[in-house]
Amino acid sequence: MTARILIVDDVPANTRLLEAKLSAEYYQVLAARDGFEAIRLTHSWQPDLILLDVMMPEMDGYETCRRLKDDPLTTHTPVVMVTALGEPSERLRGLEAGADDFLTKPVEYDTLLARVRSLVRLKRLLDEWHLRGETARALGLSTEFAEPPSVAGARALVVDDWDLGAQTVQDALSREGILPGRAGSESEALALAGAIPFDLIVLSLSMTAEDPLWLASRLRTTEVTQDIPLLLIAEPEQKARLLRGFDIGANDWLLRPIDENELRARARNQIRRKFYQDRLRSDLGSALEMALTDPLTGLYNQRYLMRHLHGLLASGRADGLALMMIDVDYFKTVNDRFGHAAGDRALRLIAETLRGRTRVFDSIARYGGEEFVVVMPGTGEHDAAAAAERLRRAIEDLGFAPQEGKRHPLTVSIGLAFAGAHITTAEQLLQAADQAMYRAKRSGRNRVEVSSAG
Amino acid sequence: MTARILIVDDVPANTRLLEAKLSAEYYQVLAARDGFEAIRLTHSWQPDLILLDVMMPEMDGYETCRRLKDDPLTTHTPVVMVTALGEPSERLRGLEAGADDFLTKPVEYDTLLARVRSLVRLKRLLDEWHLRGETARALGLSTEFAEPPSVAGARALVVDDWDLGAQTVQDALSREGILPGRAGSESEALALAGAIPFDLIVLSLSMTAEDPLWLASRLRTTEVTQDIPLLLIAEPEQKARLLRGFDIGANDWLLRPIDENELRARARNQIRRKFYQDRLRSDLGSALEMALTDPLTGLYNQRYLMRHLHGLLASGRADGLALMMIDVDYFKTVNDRFGHAAGDRALRLIAETLRGRTRVFDSIARYGGEEFVVVMPGTGEHDAAAAAERLRRAIEDLGFAPQEGKRHPLTVSIGLAFAGAHITTAEQLLQAADQAMYRAKRSGRNRVEVSSAG
Repeated sequence: MTARILIVDDVPANTRLLEAKLSAEYYQVLAARDGFEAIRLTHSWQPDLILLDVMMPEMDGYETCRRLKDDPLTTHTPVVMVTALGEPSERLRGLEAGADDFLTKPVEYDTLLARVRSLVRLKRLLDEWHLRGETARALGLSTEFAEPPSVAGARALVVDDWDLGAQTVQDALSREGILPGRAGSESEALALAGAIPFDLIVLSLSMTAEDPLWLASRLRTTEVTQDIPLLLIAEPEQKARLLRGFDIGANDWLLRPIDENELRARARNQIRRKFYQDRLRSDLGSALEMALTDPLTGLYNQRYLMRHLHGLLASGRADGLALMMIDVDYFKTVNDRFGHAAGDRALRLIAETLRGRTRVFDSIARYGGEEFVVVMPGTGEHDAAAAAERLRRAIEDLGFAPQEGKRHPLTVSIGLAFAGAHITTAEQLLQAADQAMYRAKRSGRNRVEVSSAG
Repeated sequence: MTARILIVDDVPANTRLLEAKLSAEYYQVLAARDGFEAIRLTHSWQPDLILLDVMMPEMDGYETCRRLKDDPLTTHTPVVMVTALGEPSERLRGLEAGADDFLTKPVEYDTLLARVRSLVRLKRLLDEWHLRGETARALGLSTEFAEPPSVAGARALVVDDWDLGAQTVQDALSREGILPGRAGSESEALALAGAIPFDLIVLSLSMTAEDPLWLASRLRTTEVTQDIPLLLIAEPEQKARLLRGFDIGANDWLLRPIDENELRARARNQIRRKFYQDRLRSDLGSALEMALTDPLTGLYNQRYLMRHLHGLLASGRADGLALMMIDVDYFKTVNDRFGHAAGDRALRLIAETLRGRTRVFDSIARYGGEEFVVVMPGTGEHDAAAAAERLRRAIEDLGFAPQEGKRHPLTVSIGLAFAGAHITTAEQLLQAADQAMYRAKRSGRNRVEVSSAG
């Protein structure tokens, strides 16, 4: 997949070389001369990846990276820092500034291209999730963390058949507050990863009994594990295996001997990215749930009710389908006398009562202002009438207090109807229940009436 | 990216060779001996790609492909058919059965791997969209087409600097009912693709003045064009360029001399896939819109209102913020006398009146059963009171007919309140408007009262 790549370097000769190489691979490339221009171009051109020189006058690479990562609009653009020395301390500074990876000068092009492919793939996935996130934000759900979430309590799986190597990694993760599990073989790793929702998998490429890349491939093609960050640990001479690992779908890497601080920083960054992705996912879930529920009571809304009823009636599952129309008696009085807040409390109280006293396979919806509907599949007339009577009494017994120390009678009138030979549509069923409910009103309220239609 | 690949062939020797090659590339591979086993494994193992032999006893590859593509659960799994001859007529049969591409025996591995990467990438994207689609389906929105949608009227862009070559393609597409535009250069193509929402781009790799793969890269890195199917047309000796094109993000290909039927079949398949993706996208949009709107009136719901008000008041844009609480007078009587359907009609009528007689930057919400709220930013007391009075009169003048030939007075009481020194929260503003509205009720209804708080 092609991508837009922004190269940031104050020495034009350096950028020209990289630019030519990446353009030959059909990447779209732009160059920036300093950190300020880099930030400007990141906003206007929206690159998929930034190659950022560390040593620059005025604002160095660390500071540029920090500013990009602090800005919600650019925080998810992957940054690969290009360093001269490749010292662990440099890498640590970069990781703490939010960098996604490092390359040392002179840049090895196969490593560069493998990292570009891997980071761009992740970026594209996040872009997809962001689209959802934006919609969630439009709904007023926040998808950005105010500050980087803590990784304490996150679960990691360390996969290594070398006890001492695994222990070093586990100890380092523990000191970060991460809970590290251990698997000594691939089959053990697959079993554990299938059972426990890990936030990070650290895989040693030095395992001897089995091919760790085969495990990487299995993790990446299995639904429950395919989005878990995968960090590879390799010996310096295993470069080719590492690159292959990135092509399979690994997210990060570290060479032995392990620098503890670097491991912790990389683990932290990967776990935070995972948390962010989880959050985007759950925000969208909430947003969609909202489409089906009534905000005040949390019950289903009329929209859901109609679809649900149409579904039940169309699928022929209407046999013994009972429906209650429940209307609060003199509800207007509650609102008029005690205000809307008291009225809302009454509605929530009734909703809770309905929820607590119906079966799991009944569906309860708020149908209108002070009306509720309970749909009861597979229920005969006798049982339905008994259920309605129980609900009526439970609400009467609530002892509703609209204000501190005040009592106000809260009762409902219930109309009950059944699908049958003459009642075959959702509209007919609702209308029959509605008519029975009005009969209950006319007969003095706080009672149940059963429709004779059907 | 790694993937699960299912190889279907009745000759074990054929599958073993392919299996070994793909496993060495760390793909997860399973083999099926016939079409029945292929269908079973596609359901249980959910491969990302199927390599399907054409010549098999009992059920041949075409029939297997057709059955897979006819089943909603497997229809989006890419199928590459492996043929012995590579005749245009064979390819056409395969395309009509829904195949995504073809390879001829003996399989060239670099072509195979390039196609696998490209098709798996698209599959992964569609998987993301399907997750959304499933949620939309849960909301009762249909995301599956009952039958393949017609491509008549779809827009295609043919990019070729060779007039005759472009004309051949345009003519073929036209006979399929597709509307083909033409660009003779890359800059023209970019300008057109930026302005017109094409459903397909057909790009000739034989363009001489410029490098067509550079254009492919530009199209793939530009937001408005990156999801448009890209079909490459190449000379037989341009294989390496074609493979590069797939790596950049092309979706399909065709060799010259062009077989018109094959071009039409490939164009059709690509456009249908695009339509499907568009539909998933818009279904999700509708699902999310639902979360913010009242199903009966289409107005915003209480959930949106509260978020909107909190936003306005928190952002300091509360200066001159007016809010109307509108309650329908004696609404219960409409429901009781004429039934719910009449009541619903009255509410919709009022909603339409409010929508038609407020400004574009006012927000209207259904607040409760028979209550509406109008939020008016930047509005002084005088203007707000005049607006409320206009709305009151417009509703009184509606001449509501609850039943054929019957008239029933439909009026509203309106309470008006303003954000100010003492009213700084959404709750306070709503309460003040609510109190003013109750004063209007007590003073005889069908009138506007202005809150003195603020």
